[in-house]
Amino acid sequence: MSTPQAARTAKAAPTKTPDASRRSQRSRQAILDASMELVGEVGYNRLTIEAIASRAGVGKQTIYRWWSSKAAVLLDAFLSVVHDNGYDNGIPDTGDLEADLKAVLRATADEFTDAGFEAPYRALAVAGAADAELAQEFVERLQEPGLEVYIRRLRLAQEAGQIAEDLDLHLAVELLLSPFQQRWLTRSGPLTYEFTDRLVEMALRAFR
Amino acid sequence: MSTPQAARTAKAAPTKTPDASRRSQRSRQAILDASMELVGEVGYNRLTIEAIASRAGVGKQTIYRWWSSKAAVLLDAFLSVVHDNGYDNGIPDTGDLEADLKAVLRATADEFTDAGFEAPYRALAVAGAADAELAQEFVERLQEPGLEVYIRRLRLAQEAGQIAEDLDLHLAVELLLSPFQQRWLTRSGPLTYEFTDRLVEMALRAFR
Repeated sequence: MSTPQAARTAKAAPTKTPDASRRSQRSRQAILDASMELVGEVGYNRLTIEAIASRAGVGKQTIYRWWSSKAAVLLDAFLSVVHDNGYDNGIPDTGDLEADLKAVLRATADEFTDAGFEAPYRALAVAGAADAELAQEFVERLQEPGLEVYIRRLRLAQEAGQIAEDLDLHLAVELLLSPFQQRWLTRSGPLTYEFTDRLVEMALRAFR
Repeated sequence: MSTPQAARTAKAAPTKTPDASRRSQRSRQAILDASMELVGEVGYNRLTIEAIASRAGVGKQTIYRWWSSKAAVLLDAFLSVVHDNGYDNGIPDTGDLEADLKAVLRATADEFTDAGFEAPYRALAVAGAADAELAQEFVERLQEPGLEVYIRRLRLAQEAGQIAEDLDLHLAVELLLSPFQQRWLTRSGPLTYEFTDRLVEMALRAFR
């Protein structure tokens, strides 16, 4: 996974003094928070830089100093959540791959059934499905780094001889996560622990 | 799977004479064709019953006689394509499950990379992801019947002792198809034969 924290710090660097730097960081976080709230409320299409600025209590030019578009703001807002929740730290390795994957998928199910996360993430996913350019940013900055966290955990299991040594790890993670993502996006079934546990068990049979 | 042909015939039945019936069927097909063309051109949100009527050369009241909403028209248009392409006839059973699944997924990849199908189907999928009510119709009438075709083929393999006798067939089909659907919807990777073949091979390892 890339290092969103480093990227954010680098972007927020035009300030000179400690006080100005703190104010800058507060504005930045207010903008990210406002964009997450608003996209959940009005959807991606009706989200505007003006509304984000107003909700965050900053001027539009402050937003444009750091970001080129609402999509760029929103992607950084999600990367901020990903980072704050520690997802980029990786999946725990207790040595028991099945238990570790079940735990992380149960936590993901909790997250995707939480309205505060669900609404903005759905707005972004819908916008990405409709718009090829946004989709590319979405995949490169959010989806692929998310898969990479699982790939790293599977690689450890592979090195420990717990899964097949010739397994295509990227395809394996697609097999594990896509049924969850599809159920969520199309609302075709509930994201219960029963579902995520059975999904892990079935996918692992393909990995061994 | 339900029988869309029977449903369509039943719906198109208010006519009295053979001539009127033929005219009615022609109008019906013109409406379905127009809705597929238009949704690919303007997207779901900007699709209107008026525009469909105009393109099909019928009055708005003709459409409202048979359908309650644009979503209902569009779903019937897709069911018509599904039926015309023979998908509801099921997946061939040559006795070789791997070969049969590879053949059908290659054909599906061809279809999903064809712009004439891709654009309207993406418009409908995006609308379904955004709208919970439409999602329910989409899942019940199009997605679940699509899964059922695969479930039937897996059941034959199960009866022949080729896959595990306690396999959850619905979850198995989700495991097989979701990585394809996710790649397509998020545009995260190409829908090549190489991808679909590897996907079938990996999923089958989970089924045995």
